[in-house]
Amino acid sequence: MCSYLYKMKNEKRKGMKKSLLTAVGLLPALAPLQAQEQKPEAKDERPNIIFFLVDDMGWQDTSVPFWTKKTFYNERYETPNMERLARQGMMFTQAYTSSVSSPTRASLLTGANAARHRVTNWTLERDKQTDAASGTLTLPDWNYNGVAQSGDINNTFRATSFVQLLKDNGYHTIHCGKAHWGAIDTPGEDPHHFGFEVNIAGHAAGGPATYLSERNYGHDAEGTPVNLFAIPGLEKYWGTGTFLTEALTREALKALDKAKAYGQPFYLYMSHYAVHVPIERDPRYFDKYKRKGLSDREAAYASLVEGMDKSLGDILDWLEENGEADNTIVIFLSDNGGYATGPARDEPFYTQNFPLKCGKGSAYEGGIREPMIVAWPGVTEPGSRCDEYVIAEDFYPSILEMAGVRNYKVPQTVDGVSFVPLLRQTGNPAEGRALYWNFPNLWGETGPGIGPTCTIRKDNWKLIYFYETGKKELYDIPNDIGEEHDLAAEHPDVVKRLSRELGQFLRASGGQRPSFKATGKPCPWPDETE
Amino acid sequence: MCSYLYKMKNEKRKGMKKSLLTAVGLLPALAPLQAQEQKPEAKDERPNIIFFLVDDMGWQDTSVPFWTKKTFYNERYETPNMERLARQGMMFTQAYTSSVSSPTRASLLTGANAARHRVTNWTLERDKQTDAASGTLTLPDWNYNGVAQSGDINNTFRATSFVQLLKDNGYHTIHCGKAHWGAIDTPGEDPHHFGFEVNIAGHAAGGPATYLSERNYGHDAEGTPVNLFAIPGLEKYWGTGTFLTEALTREALKALDKAKAYGQPFYLYMSHYAVHVPIERDPRYFDKYKRKGLSDREAAYASLVEGMDKSLGDILDWLEENGEADNTIVIFLSDNGGYATGPARDEPFYTQNFPLKCGKGSAYEGGIREPMIVAWPGVTEPGSRCDEYVIAEDFYPSILEMAGVRNYKVPQTVDGVSFVPLLRQTGNPAEGRALYWNFPNLWGETGPGIGPTCTIRKDNWKLIYFYETGKKELYDIPNDIGEEHDLAAEHPDVVKRLSRELGQFLRASGGQRPSFKATGKPCPWPDETE
Repeated sequence: MCSYLYKMKNEKRKGMKKSLLTAVGLLPALAPLQAQEQKPEAKDERPNIIFFLVDDMGWQDTSVPFWTKKTFYNERYETPNMERLARQGMMFTQAYTSSVSSPTRASLLTGANAARHRVTNWTLERDKQTDAASGTLTLPDWNYNGVAQSGDINNTFRATSFVQLLKDNGYHTIHCGKAHWGAIDTPGEDPHHFGFEVNIAGHAAGGPATYLSERNYGHDAEGTPVNLFAIPGLEKYWGTGTFLTEALTREALKALDKAKAYGQPFYLYMSHYAVHVPIERDPRYFDKYKRKGLSDREAAYASLVEGMDKSLGDILDWLEENGEADNTIVIFLSDNGGYATGPARDEPFYTQNFPLKCGKGSAYEGGIREPMIVAWPGVTEPGSRCDEYVIAEDFYPSILEMAGVRNYKVPQTVDGVSFVPLLRQTGNPAEGRALYWNFPNLWGETGPGIGPTCTIRKDNWKLIYFYETGKKELYDIPNDIGEEHDLAAEHPDVVKRLSRELGQFLRASGGQRPSFKATGKPCPWPDETE
Repeated sequence: MCSYLYKMKNEKRKGMKKSLLTAVGLLPALAPLQAQEQKPEAKDERPNIIFFLVDDMGWQDTSVPFWTKKTFYNERYETPNMERLARQGMMFTQAYTSSVSSPTRASLLTGANAARHRVTNWTLERDKQTDAASGTLTLPDWNYNGVAQSGDINNTFRATSFVQLLKDNGYHTIHCGKAHWGAIDTPGEDPHHFGFEVNIAGHAAGGPATYLSERNYGHDAEGTPVNLFAIPGLEKYWGTGTFLTEALTREALKALDKAKAYGQPFYLYMSHYAVHVPIERDPRYFDKYKRKGLSDREAAYASLVEGMDKSLGDILDWLEENGEADNTIVIFLSDNGGYATGPARDEPFYTQNFPLKCGKGSAYEGGIREPMIVAWPGVTEPGSRCDEYVIAEDFYPSILEMAGVRNYKVPQTVDGVSFVPLLRQTGNPAEGRALYWNFPNLWGETGPGIGPTCTIRKDNWKLIYFYETGKKELYDIPNDIGEEHDLAAEHPDVVKRLSRELGQFLRASGGQRPSFKATGKPCPWPDETE
C-alpha cells in the first residue's frame, strides 16, 4: 500500500497522463532517428540536466508550499524562482535525504544508501572522526574519509559516480559550489575525480568560511586561507563586493556558455554553499526582510535564501535566452533539514522547520524532509505535484535514466530507485517500498531526534530507533507530520514488523552501529530488542 | 632490415638483457600477488609515470649528446639533470615527432598518425585555419579545431586519450603546462576533457604570452589577458619574480604531494611552455651564459633550456626524497625541432639544430628529430642508448603498456607501436617498419623543407615529397644526418618503392593534400608522379 499525503484528483491525474503521452512522442531524446533525419547535422539531442542543490535549506524556507497549505514560513520567505520552476514542473512533497550533508551527498553521488556507504557523518580532515565525544558509546569506524572512485585509502567508500558515467557517455560535466565528498588529501576531495570536467570552488569542506568577497571568501590579504572552509578558486571576485552566491552563479553561467559552444549535452551540478552557516547578510535582500520586521539574524537568513533563489532565476533565464529551456531538465533539492539547533538564528530552537519537528541532524522530519522540484519539459506536467516518497540515493538511477545511460556496471550496489516513472506518470516505484536511514553517530549538536538512530519509513509509518536507549517511536506521518503522537505502544505489531525490516536491511547492507563503553557490546539492532 | 645509427656492442646488449631479466622479476607491477603477500595493505604497486615534454627544444639543445659525438651545441648548453636522467635510463637517438606542435601533441594523446588525425598544423581559434596564405595552393580542410573526446564539433578528431584510460584504470592524472589540443571554445581546449584530474595552466594556446611573473604571465594589472596566450591559473605567482618554468614546477610538485597522499599511482604530464618563443631571460641562468660570451638572445635561450632542466632535476629530487624513484618511469621528449627560422635568435637562420638541417616546421631532421630519454627503474639499463627509430604516436601504446592497461577499446585507430620491447630489450618493433609524416599545410615561416610535404622513413632511407613542386628528395640518414646529399637521382628504385608505400599509407589513413588553385585539381600523391 502506498500512502499519499495529497491525493491528486483522479481527473487531474488522467489529464496529466494523457498530455504526458503526447509529450513523450515529441521528446527528441526518445526519437534520435527521427531527429537525425530532420537535421543535416547530427546534433546531440539528449537533454541537458541541471541539479540545483541547496545546503541546509529547510522544507519551509520558501514561498512554495510543500505542505497542504501555506505556512507561516512560506509567507516569510520569497522565492519567486522556485515558484517559477514549480509552475514548470513537478513538486515532490515527500522528498527525503539524510539529516546531515555528507551522507546525503555520498548517496546522491553513488546511489548507495547511507548504511551501505558508511559516510554517515560529516567529513573534513583525513583520518579524523568528526563525531562529538560520548561518555557511554563507542562509535563505529565509519567512512570518515568519504567517497572515492580510486585509490586504496582506508575508511573510504569506493564507488563510481553517475557524473563519471555521464561524462563517459559524452556529457559535459560542470561542478559549481560545494562538493564535500571526500576528506582533505583523499582523491574524493576534488570533484574532478568523480568525472567533473569543470570544478568551480568545490573542495573537501562542507561550508563557507564566509560569503563575503570583502573577506576574500576566507582568505587574508596575502591570499592565505584563514581556515579549512576558505572557498577556493574565486580570486577574481575578491574585494569586488560580490556575494558568494552571486559569484558562483556568474561562474556557472560562464561554464554554461562554454558548454553550449562545445556541442555536447551538459550536466551542471549547481551546488550552493548557501544557506549554510555563517548566516551572513546578502546585501541585495537584507533590508527588505528587515522592513518585514525580522531580526538581524533572521533577515540575514532570509537574504541567503532569496539570494539562492535569484541564482536559480538567473539560470532559468540563461536557459530561455539561449534556447535551451525546452531541452533542459532542472532538479531542485536541499541536502538536509534547516539548521534549527544552534545560536546562529533567533527563532526558538527546533522550530525553524515548523510544522516539522527539529531540523538538521535530527531523525525527525525537520532533519530529513526536503523541498524538491523537477521540471522536465515535455515530460513533467506543468504545476503538478507528487506525493510519493523518494530519497537521496534515487537521484543516481533517475539522472542516468534521464540521460539515456543504460546497462552501466559500477562497483557499488545502487540502492536507489529511479523516480522517472513518477515524472512520466507511468508507474509508482514507491509502492511497497521502504526507505532506510542509519546514523550511528553523534553529529555534535543536540536536540530532539539528534543522536545515534536508525529509521524506516514505509507507507504511512515511520519508525525511529534510538541505539543508546533502545527506544522506538512510531509515527503516522501523513496524519502527524510534526511527529507529536508516538504510536509505538498502540501498534506493537507495526513496531515489530518495521523493526525487523529495518534490522534486516541494515545487516544486509553492511550498516554500522555503536557499542556500549561499559560492556564493549554493540547496541542491539532494532529487531534484537523489544 | 633495421637500421642502427650506433650499434651497441653485442657484449653490452647481452649484459643488458641479462640484468633486465633479473630486474623484471623484482618489478612490483609484474608480481602483484607477491607484493600483496608481503604487505598487509593492498597498496597499488603499478608504476608512476612522468612524461616530461619540452616545447620547441632542439635535438642539440642539451649537454647530452644524442649524436655520435659531442657537438658545438652540446658544449654550449648545460643540462645536468638530463645527463642524470640519461645515466639512469635509455637514450633514444632517433626519436621523431611532427615538425610543429599540434600534430605532435595530437599524436601523443591519441596514438594516431598525423595523416589520420588531420590536426596537421597548429591550432588556436575555433574554425580558423592558421595556415599562411598561398597564391598557388588551396590547402585542405584539416582539423583546425583539434582533438576532442566528445561533442559534435566540425573539423575535430574524435578520440579517447590514453590519459582517460589511465584515469579509468585508477591512475591519478595530472596535467601541468602547455596543453594545446583543441581550439578555444571546443571541448579539447581543456585537459580535464581528456581524463586529467588536475589541470595546471593548460588551455588552447600553444605558447606563453610571457614567462615573466612581473607581467602576470600575460595579464594586465586588472587581471585581463593581454592576448590569447596569457597563461591561466597561476595568479598566486603574479608579481613574485617567479619565472614561468619555476612556477609550473612548484605547482607540479604540490600536485605530486597530493598524488602521494591519494594512494594511487600517478601520471604526471609535465609539459613545459619552455623553450617556446618569446625567448625571455630566465634570470637564474642568463648571466652565466652571458659570461660564456653568448649574445643576449642566445644567452636568454640557453637560460630557458637550463631552467627547464632545473625543473627536471626538481622532479627527480622529489621522487628520491619521497621514496618514489624506484617505482616511477620518467620519459623525456621535445615536441618538435628547435626554432631556427625567425629573428628571435641570433644564430644564423636554419643552423640552430646543427648537424641537423633547418628546424621547427621543416621536414628535414632539424624539424622532427627529438631528444628522448626513458628511465624505468629495473627495466631500462642505466646509461644505455637505443638507436632504433620511434615516433610520437608510439607513446600511446607504450605508456598504456607501462601502466598495465590492456584490451582497451577506443574509437580511433592507434597507429603507434609500443616501444616497450626496446626498453626491455625483448624485441625490435622498428624492424621492417616505416614511419610517416603528412604536412599538407603552410606553417607560416619559410626555410629549407618548410612547406606542404609528406615524408617516409624506412630503414636508412628517408624520402621527402614536396606537394607543390612534385620534387622528391632521398637521403641516407645514418650516413648523411645533415641531409646534404640528395640521392633520389641515384636510386630511382628506392624512390619509387618508398613513394608507393607512402602514398598507400596516406590514402589508407585518410591523409589530406593541397590542390592547385590554377586547375582546382589536387596535388598528386607521391606515387602518382615521377
